[in-house]
Amino acid sequence: MSATTPSTEPYEIASEVAELGFNQYGKAENHLVHVRRDGGVHEITDFTVSSQLRGDFARVHTHGDNAHCVATDSQKNTIFSLARDGVSTPEEFAIRLSDHFTSTYAWVTGGRWQVDQRSWERIVTDDGPHDHSFVRGGKEVRRTVVQRDGDELFVVSGVVDLTVLKSSGSAFVGFVTDKYRTLADATDRIMSTDVTAWWHYDPARVRDVDHDAVYASVRRIILTEFAELHSLALQQTLWAMAVRVIEEHEEINEIRFSCPNNHHFVVDLSPFGQENPNVVFYAADRPYGLIEASIVRKGVPSEPRAWDSAPAFI
Amino acid sequence: MSATTPSTEPYEIASEVAELGFNQYGKAENHLVHVRRDGGVHEITDFTVSSQLRGDFARVHTHGDNAHCVATDSQKNTIFSLARDGVSTPEEFAIRLSDHFTSTYAWVTGGRWQVDQRSWERIVTDDGPHDHSFVRGGKEVRRTVVQRDGDELFVVSGVVDLTVLKSSGSAFVGFVTDKYRTLADATDRIMSTDVTAWWHYDPARVRDVDHDAVYASVRRIILTEFAELHSLALQQTLWAMAVRVIEEHEEINEIRFSCPNNHHFVVDLSPFGQENPNVVFYAADRPYGLIEASIVRKGVPSEPRAWDSAPAFI
Amino acid sequence: MSATTPSTEPYEIASEVAELGFNQYGKAENHLVHVRRDGGVHEITDFTVSSQLRGDFARVHTHGDNAHCVATDSQKNTIFSLARDGVSTPEEFAIRLSDHFTSTYAWVTGGRWQVDQRSWERIVTDDGPHDHSFVRGGKEVRRTVVQRDGDELFVVSGVVDLTVLKSSGSAFVGFVTDKYRTLADATDRIMSTDVTAWWHYDPARVRDVDHDAVYASVRRIILTEFAELHSLALQQTLWAMAVRVIEEHEEINEIRFSCPNNHHFVVDLSPFGQENPNVVFYAADRPYGLIEASIVRKGVPSEPRAWDSAPAFI
Amino acid sequence: MSATTPSTEPYEIASEVAELGFNQYGKAENHLVHVRRDGGVHEITDFTVSSQLRGDFARVHTHGDNAHCVATDSQKNTIFSLARDGVSTPEEFAIRLSDHFTSTYAWVTGGRWQVDQRSWERIVTDDGPHDHSFVRGGKEVRRTVVQRDGDELFVVSGVVDLTVLKSSGSAFVGFVTDKYRTLADATDRIMSTDVTAWWHYDPARVRDVDHDAVYASVRRIILTEFAELHSLALQQTLWAMAVRVIEEHEEINEIRFSCPNNHHFVVDLSPFGQENPNVVFYAADRPYGLIEASIVRKGVPSEPRAWDSAPAFI
Repeated sequence: MSATTPSTEPYEIASEVAELGFNQYGKAENHLVHVRRDGGVHEITDFTVSSQLRGDFARVHTHGDNAHCVATDSQKNTIFSLARDGVSTPEEFAIRLSDHFTSTYAWVTGGRWQVDQRSWERIVTDDGPHDHSFVRGGKEVRRTVVQRDGDELFVVSGVVDLTVLKSSGSAFVGFVTDKYRTLADATDRIMSTDVTAWWHYDPARVRDVDHDAVYASVRRIILTEFAELHSLALQQTLWAMAVRVIEEHEEINEIRFSCPNNHHFVVDLSPFGQENPNVVFYAADRPYGLIEASIVRKGVPSEPRAWDSAPAFI
Repeated sequence: MSATTPSTEPYEIASEVAELGFNQYGKAENHLVHVRRDGGVHEITDFTVSSQLRGDFARVHTHGDNAHCVATDSQKNTIFSLARDGVSTPEEFAIRLSDHFTSTYAWVTGGRWQVDQRSWERIVTDDGPHDHSFVRGGKEVRRTVVQRDGDELFVVSGVVDLTVLKSSGSAFVGFVTDKYRTLADATDRIMSTDVTAWWHYDPARVRDVDHDAVYASVRRIILTEFAELHSLALQQTLWAMAVRVIEEHEEINEIRFSCPNNHHFVVDLSPFGQENPNVVFYAADRPYGLIEASIVRKGVPSEPRAWDSAPAFI
Repeated sequence: MSATTPSTEPYEIASEVAELGFNQYGKAENHLVHVRRDGGVHEITDFTVSSQLRGDFARVHTHGDNAHCVATDSQKNTIFSLARDGVSTPEEFAIRLSDHFTSTYAWVTGGRWQVDQRSWERIVTDDGPHDHSFVRGGKEVRRTVVQRDGDELFVVSGVVDLTVLKSSGSAFVGFVTDKYRTLADATDRIMSTDVTAWWHYDPARVRDVDHDAVYASVRRIILTEFAELHSLALQQTLWAMAVRVIEEHEEINEIRFSCPNNHHFVVDLSPFGQENPNVVFYAADRPYGLIEASIVRKGVPSEPRAWDSAPAFI
Repeated sequence: MSATTPSTEPYEIASEVAELGFNQYGKAENHLVHVRRDGGVHEITDFTVSSQLRGDFARVHTHGDNAHCVATDSQKNTIFSLARDGVSTPEEFAIRLSDHFTSTYAWVTGGRWQVDQRSWERIVTDDGPHDHSFVRGGKEVRRTVVQRDGDELFVVSGVVDLTVLKSSGSAFVGFVTDKYRTLADATDRIMSTDVTAWWHYDPARVRDVDHDAVYASVRRIILTEFAELHSLALQQTLWAMAVRVIEEHEEINEIRFSCPNNHHFVVDLSPFGQENPNVVFYAADRPYGLIEASIVRKGVPSEPRAWDSAPAFI
């Protein structure tokens, strides 16, 4: 350190040609575990929470003036403090954070709050379900991204990495034949993907939705359509899932999918004198197909502000 | 397999209420290594290439009709085939792919092509730089996302995960004091981040830019401003970087940053009878600050189509 | 390439002072998916298989003479070819590979075969369990490492990353108090770990074991003891698990644990005027406790050859 | 929580058939950054430190009696406290930790201390090397594992993930031809690997070694031999590296390699009417070759206690 400590007084770094655009800041990936006790029986909730604020923060950038800066550390403190009274669903907790920050600080006009939930299942011993011991569930993540723009509220929720595979009931034929095609038609192949599906709730209804019930229902629709549709293309399967979601869930305006095609190649065993009638497959990592699609409710246009920082599409 | 193989004939899955919105598909993460030989001296280029097509693909979804479907496997073949004649810069290779696909298939009206480049450095032995042996460079990735919408071309390029740290020359004081603040002022702290910075080229100039030169220049500006600015907030440091980029690079319309604050906490050694004048730090993983900002050229509005599927902001 | 292609004739790189010690080589992480059809009802098995050979391979190293070298590519081919007739359990498939390689090549005197199994669960729709559609199970991995030394066979099997948490029923008190202690006693804390537990089968019985049944039983013992023991230390919990495994499974000679202590810290909410009676926790990533122990059957010494390249301990 | 808090009194969980074997415990992955100031010029050291103790800890397991338990939290405190006086090299810091723990607690008879070092390079601006600003170096990690068994000291040091590639100067011919071979001879191929190389220092000299100098020298030998040897097999390349290390470094008794063969396949462009004379390659992820070998100094047997928990071999 130098003999004279540099000043911490704000000053302007001015520019004739550059100006500040969209910006947000906060604390990301606060890993919060909440324990609820009902007598001796416990419930645990495992949330990873990110908070980012938007509003009048220009002088933090241009002047190094932190007068409006709610420290990311303070945002972290707020997350844990608000959790003290219970966390409910990811959606409700994120909405509560959005209400808190926009009502507490006059210059905070919006923001983004993401909650990822990982599942725990109760351990069952010979004595039955245990009161306070749990084993982690599957690897899929339930995620919500809540955004505020003044009084407007946008809630996108979904499932990330729900991995599925069907060992039959999938074909891929009739695609473009030209110089660059070397792939043969397949009338019976393995189809496997990691479903990432996010849906946008109707803003007019989103505070009244039973989010746990919708999550369970959409997940069930995804698994059922994946299993039961004889698929002619992964795109068709996603469309079939989406149609049912839009038809059965009036509170959902749009659903987006981003799904890799996890290729399983039939191994050529003929050099070893063996046939391979779809028995032995090599599961490849990269490259992979990547299918992305949005399906919307007719007459309801997609709302960019709901999706801008909720990347359903890479 | 059942006795009767299911039909692969297209048919409609119709819906009164759902309709297809934005969609794209292709092959992701084709890991391509190109060797150029100039006599016995080799140059290698290490690209991970993703291709996704947009256009008239509705019937793939709604009917399982693949007549318009250029298989993701064929897209992969195209990438490797076009690389045969040389790959140049990430930007030029991605633009070439975009030209190829939109001109080859009448119904392909646009798409997205991403190229990640990893660096290799020539091994230097006692005999000097070796002709054809290389060691991997740093962990940072150079990335470009090229998008086409008809004849319009959008090129966003940047650096991902350029990790920097300064052990002095950073303060954070004067932020909001309220019930949720527990953090003390810091007049001298470690500041560290993984810079992800992406810039959007002026579409009118992008085909004429020397992309290697711009990349090197922006990278140098980022490192220099990080080092030399006495920082009052990470936001201010990003602003200072951006101002110089916009001022020195007329071909750039906008630059976006997404930067974690990699916290380094001074360890309290007083229980062990020791002072700790910024000598011993604990480097934390999570949670972390997350600072995101866009800086634009005055008079040039941000172009959403350049950024929609190039998530500078999480 | 130079005008004259370099020779590929073997030659010796001799040394007065260096000599070759232990060595093995092969193909790692062959991701194999096997489909078994029983009428229209499918079973799938998802194995990641690594094969490494040991024996008389010195001249590959010292002379670049590949006459004894069974190419790693050929080992891969063998894995897929042998899978054609069914893969059974990880243990049985790995033992079959060991029998094949040691009996086929005279100079192959041993080796190492590892199989990781990931689980898939049958999708249940409104129509019941589906014939050929699956969803990935939990993130835990079932692993076996089979080693051969001539006719001797060593089989170590286990579970990797079985993540558990108990929200009560765990204490940690009475540990060393000295200058370096700052942690308070805890009479009621969250205890959470990712259980990695590996066991060594009695070589005399290992070919006759029902490996699926043992895996299920040991997993159940681990979950039950974790849940039911009021724990005074993670070490005690591991010991309790091990005692039951050794007592109930005569075919197991030794079991080893490597278990992180996934710290969950009670958040201090007093700055915000709140009590926190074990309700809100911060789940930390690093650093973490790491508890490792081997428990053996009395009178049966640990067999180093079973464990040398099966790192239960980091 | 029940009305009556369970006792925390130690008690024995006894077994007729099970007994405790090898065990160790501690705190893993303490991420420590040390700043040394020489006037205004700073040096930073980035260590990730793991500490595990061995000794008389049986009653922690069998009785839940923590009287001998130096809490993993206290081990963490010790690491940060000892760093206050400077951290020197990974080897010297780990040895200092081993001296501290074995001399401070009578029942601690040994242990394991691992230090991973990540590199930072000084940022160079137009004004020259900056006093206190740094950018992360390559992705390789320098690692040491120090173990104590009473007064005996075992130090294994090495490099992890030093990724190299040569685009010519590598052949693979003359390997076993049989039913399972489908790979053709290659007289000129890309060879690429992530070198993990660990060496065991002569215990009699290890406290007097200039560890930074040895690290730099071995790294240079690895890169030089990789580049300059016309390779007939990856095994031969490793042998050539090892011979030079053993010959030039009397203080090293043994060196072990674990090296994947990062396959780069020549893409078949003939379907597109193109030749591909080693220009366009597809870089595969999995499966990969895996070559592991130990090379020892003649007359000096390998020391198992140095390697038991330093897994050079998977």
